[in-house]
Amino acid sequence: MHKNRILSALYTDMYQLTMGQAYFLKNRHEQPASFDYFFRKNPFKGGYVIFAGLNELLEQIQSLHFGREDIDYLHQQGFHSDYLEYLKSFSFRGNLSGMQEGEIVFPVAPIIRADGGLHEVQLIETLLLNVLNFQSLIATKASRIRYSAGDRILTDFGLRRAQGLGGIQASRAAIIGGFDSTSNMMAARDHKITPSGTMAHSFIESYANELEAFRAYASIFPNNCVLLADTYNTLKSGVPNAIKVARELKEKGYVLKGIRLDSGDLAYISKKARSMLDEAGFHDVKIVVSNQLDEHVIKSLIDQQAPIDIFGVGTSMIIGRPDGAIDGVYKLAYASKEPRLKISENLQKTTLPGKKKVIRFLDKHSCFYADCIALEDEKLPKQMTHPYQKEKSLNLEGKAHEEVFVKHMLEGKITENGEKSPVELKEKAAMRLKQLPEEHKRFDFPHIYKVGVSDKLLSLRDNMVQKLQNYI
Amino acid sequence: MHKNRILSALYTDMYQLTMGQAYFLKNRHEQPASFDYFFRKNPFKGGYVIFAGLNELLEQIQSLHFGREDIDYLHQQGFHSDYLEYLKSFSFRGNLSGMQEGEIVFPVAPIIRADGGLHEVQLIETLLLNVLNFQSLIATKASRIRYSAGDRILTDFGLRRAQGLGGIQASRAAIIGGFDSTSNMMAARDHKITPSGTMAHSFIESYANELEAFRAYASIFPNNCVLLADTYNTLKSGVPNAIKVARELKEKGYVLKGIRLDSGDLAYISKKARSMLDEAGFHDVKIVVSNQLDEHVIKSLIDQQAPIDIFGVGTSMIIGRPDGAIDGVYKLAYASKEPRLKISENLQKTTLPGKKKVIRFLDKHSCFYADCIALEDEKLPKQMTHPYQKEKSLNLEGKAHEEVFVKHMLEGKITENGEKSPVELKEKAAMRLKQLPEEHKRFDFPHIYKVGVSDKLLSLRDNMVQKLQNYI
Repeated sequence: MHKNRILSALYTDMYQLTMGQAYFLKNRHEQPASFDYFFRKNPFKGGYVIFAGLNELLEQIQSLHFGREDIDYLHQQGFHSDYLEYLKSFSFRGNLSGMQEGEIVFPVAPIIRADGGLHEVQLIETLLLNVLNFQSLIATKASRIRYSAGDRILTDFGLRRAQGLGGIQASRAAIIGGFDSTSNMMAARDHKITPSGTMAHSFIESYANELEAFRAYASIFPNNCVLLADTYNTLKSGVPNAIKVARELKEKGYVLKGIRLDSGDLAYISKKARSMLDEAGFHDVKIVVSNQLDEHVIKSLIDQQAPIDIFGVGTSMIIGRPDGAIDGVYKLAYASKEPRLKISENLQKTTLPGKKKVIRFLDKHSCFYADCIALEDEKLPKQMTHPYQKEKSLNLEGKAHEEVFVKHMLEGKITENGEKSPVELKEKAAMRLKQLPEEHKRFDFPHIYKVGVSDKLLSLRDNMVQKLQNYI
Repeated sequence: MHKNRILSALYTDMYQLTMGQAYFLKNRHEQPASFDYFFRKNPFKGGYVIFAGLNELLEQIQSLHFGREDIDYLHQQGFHSDYLEYLKSFSFRGNLSGMQEGEIVFPVAPIIRADGGLHEVQLIETLLLNVLNFQSLIATKASRIRYSAGDRILTDFGLRRAQGLGGIQASRAAIIGGFDSTSNMMAARDHKITPSGTMAHSFIESYANELEAFRAYASIFPNNCVLLADTYNTLKSGVPNAIKVARELKEKGYVLKGIRLDSGDLAYISKKARSMLDEAGFHDVKIVVSNQLDEHVIKSLIDQQAPIDIFGVGTSMIIGRPDGAIDGVYKLAYASKEPRLKISENLQKTTLPGKKKVIRFLDKHSCFYADCIALEDEKLPKQMTHPYQKEKSLNLEGKAHEEVFVKHMLEGKITENGEKSPVELKEKAAMRLKQLPEEHKRFDFPHIYKVGVSDKLLSLRDNMVQKLQNYI
C-alpha cells in the first residue's frame, strides 16, 4: 500500500458495467456525453464545502484499466465476450474540467464535469463519487475545527476510529482542511505530513509508577517529550510528576515539550495545570488536550479561555461526524448531441441540462459574491436567477469575476504538472476561505451563499421540462 | 488491491513506535503483557454488536513487518538505529484469543485478548482498533436492517457514499450482518459475494425516450432485467413502459425480473406499481426500492404493507449512520508479571485488570442469559456482579455455559485453517442472533444484556484501586 495505489477497475458498482455492456453492444459507447458532479446540501448544516480528493481521482482515472483478474471475474459473471475484449484495452480518454482541489464550493453548482464517450464517462461514476464525496467531507469538517481553533495547533489522532482503510484518505483531507499534523504514520510518509505522537496510558501503567514511566520516556526522547498526565490523577499525580521531570530535564539542558490531558473537564484541568506549570517556572511547557473533541467543544474551551496549545482530534473529524457523507451525485447533462435532464416532482431534484461551467463573481473587496452556472459557450451573464425560485434574481453587472472552471484532464491525461501536496492545498484552501465572507462560516444557520443559473440555462431547462411533461 | 492486501506496518499511530523505541532501549520490549479489546457502549442505541473484521485482522497481524521504505522513513524521523535494526526483523509472535467473528458481543466484556511481549502487543493496537471497530459497526448496522427486512432481499448500494477505501471492508461486513448481495464488484469478487445492479437514470436519459431505453436494455439482458421506472414519471410512464417491455419479453419466452423505484413515496408508489403489474398479469415481476433507506424506513414500509421484494440500501448502512464509529478501546491488563489497570474518577473508565476470559451463560431455552468476565485460570463462577453497581449480583448456579473465548493465534500463527467467507459468517451471526432474546433486539430502549464480573476479578480490581488511591 503506497500513496494513491491504483485500484482495480472493479472498484465500481455493477450497474456501470451492465450499462457499459449495453452501450457497447448497441454501438453507443462512443457517443459524446457529459456528466456533472455536484452536491445538493452542505454537510454539518454549514455554509460551504472544501473540495478535496481531486488529485487522487485524476491519478486513479489516468491509470484505470481492467487487469486479467478483472476480466476473468466478469467472464464468470456472464458478461459478453465482445465487451470483455473491448474492456481489455480500455482506458479513459475523456476530458475532465472543473474546480481545483482546495477550492470552496457550494450546493447545486457543478464541481467537476466529465466529457467523453458515453461508456467511459459513465464508467468512472462510482470511483469519482467514492473519492470526492469522502475527502471533501473530511476537509470541510477539518476546516470547521480549524475555524474554532484559531492559530492553535491541530493534530489528527483519528486512525483507530476511522472507517477502516478510509483513514488513509481522511488523514490527507484533514490537512487540506487546516490540520497541522497526524498520528497516522503511513499518511505522514505518503503525503509528507508532519507525524505526531508520544505515549499512551499503557506506557505509564506498564511501569511500577508514573514517575518512573515519565523518567524512562524523557531519557529516551529528551527533546520531544510530551507526558500523558491523567493515568492516575492529573492534578495530584500527573502534573506534579511532570514538573519533577521538567526540572530534571532542565538540569541536563533540555526543555519538557508538553503534557497531555485526555480526560476530565478539560477547561478546568488545563487552567489548573497551567498555573502549576507556570508557578514552577515552566511557561514554555505546552498543554495538549484530547478526548472527544470537535469544532463545538474546541470553541467552548477557547471561549472559556482554557490555556490549551494543541488539540488532538480523533473520531469526530476522521469520520466527519455527524453527517458521515456528502450527498454528491454525478448526473448526465448531455448525450447524443443533445442536452439531457432528469425531471422529478421535486424541482430541486430536476437536473440542469447541457455542458456547463461556473463563473464566480466577486464583490469590491475581492470576496466571493455569487456563483453563476452558465452554458459552456455563453458570454458573461449580466444576471442570474435562483435555480428553484424564479422570482429571485441577482444583477451581476459590473462585478469582477473569476473563471473557476479549469481543465484537469485532456484525452485521459492529467494536464497539470506535479501533484499538489496536502500542505500546499491547505494554503490554497485557507486563502480561498479568507475570500468567503464570515456570515457563511458561522456554525448556526449560516447565510446561504448565492448560486444561480444564467438566463440561457434557465430557459433551456424550462423548455426541456415542458417538453418532457407534454410527452408524459 | 486484492483481498486483504497487506498494509504497511506504518499503518499505525506514531506513539506506538515512540513507545516501542522506549521499551526496546530500556530492554522491556519482551516483558510479558496482555491487552484487552472491548467497547463501552452499543452503537445505534441498540442492544448488541456483531463482532466482525477478525479474519482480516489476523491476516494483517500474521504478515506484519517493516519494509525497507518503512525503515527509511523512520530513520528520517530520527528513530534510533538500534531500534530500527530490531524492527527490520520484527514479526508478531504473540497469542490472540477471544470471540469468534460473527459472534454477538456486548459492552465491557473483552472481545479479543492479546498476550505477548510488551512491544509487539502494544504495536498492533491501532491496526486492531481500525479494523475491528469499523467492521463490527457495519455488521451491526446491517443486522438491524436485516431485522426490519425479515426475509426480503437486501442489497448493498453504498460504495459511492462510503468513506473512501473503507467501502471495500464495509461491503464485506454488510454480508456478515445479513445482506444478500452488493453492487461493489471488487468486494463481490474478493469475498465471493453475489454482485447486483442493473441501470442508472443516465442510461434512460441517454436514449430519446424511456421505452427505447427499456427495450435496448432488455434486448441485452433478457434474463436479468430490472428496469428503473422513475426517471420521468413512475406511474404514468415508467411502469406502463415496463409492462410493455414485460409483454415483449414474454413473447420471446423471457420473464422481466423487476422494476426499481428510487424516488417518491415508496409505500404509495410500490402499491400502485404492484397493482398495475398484477393487473397486467405480471405477478412475478419483483419490486426493488432504493433511496435513503435504513432500518427505520424499511420497518415503516413493511408496517404499511408495501409490496416490496428487494431493498437496495446505500449511505446509511455503508457509513453506519448515525454513529459512524464504535468506541472500541484496547487497554493494558497485565505487564511485568502483574495485573494492571487505569483508574479514573469515573468508575466506568477504570479498566478491569488481569488476564481474563468471558464465559457465556445460557437459559433453559439455550438463549443467551449473561456474560461473566472472569480471570483466566478461574473455575466456573457461581455468581457475578455488575461491574459498576456492586449491589447488583446474579446467581449463575445451574445455568448451562459456553466458553466463548477461543484461541485465534499462537506465537504469531493463525490457528484456524481457512478463512471463513462472509457468507459463512453471515450464517453464524444469524444463528447466534436467534439465541439472543428479542428484547435485546428492539430499536427503542432495548433491554440491557447482563455482563458482570466474577467475585475474584471484582476483588482484584477493588484491591488495586484502593492501593493506587492510597499511593496518590
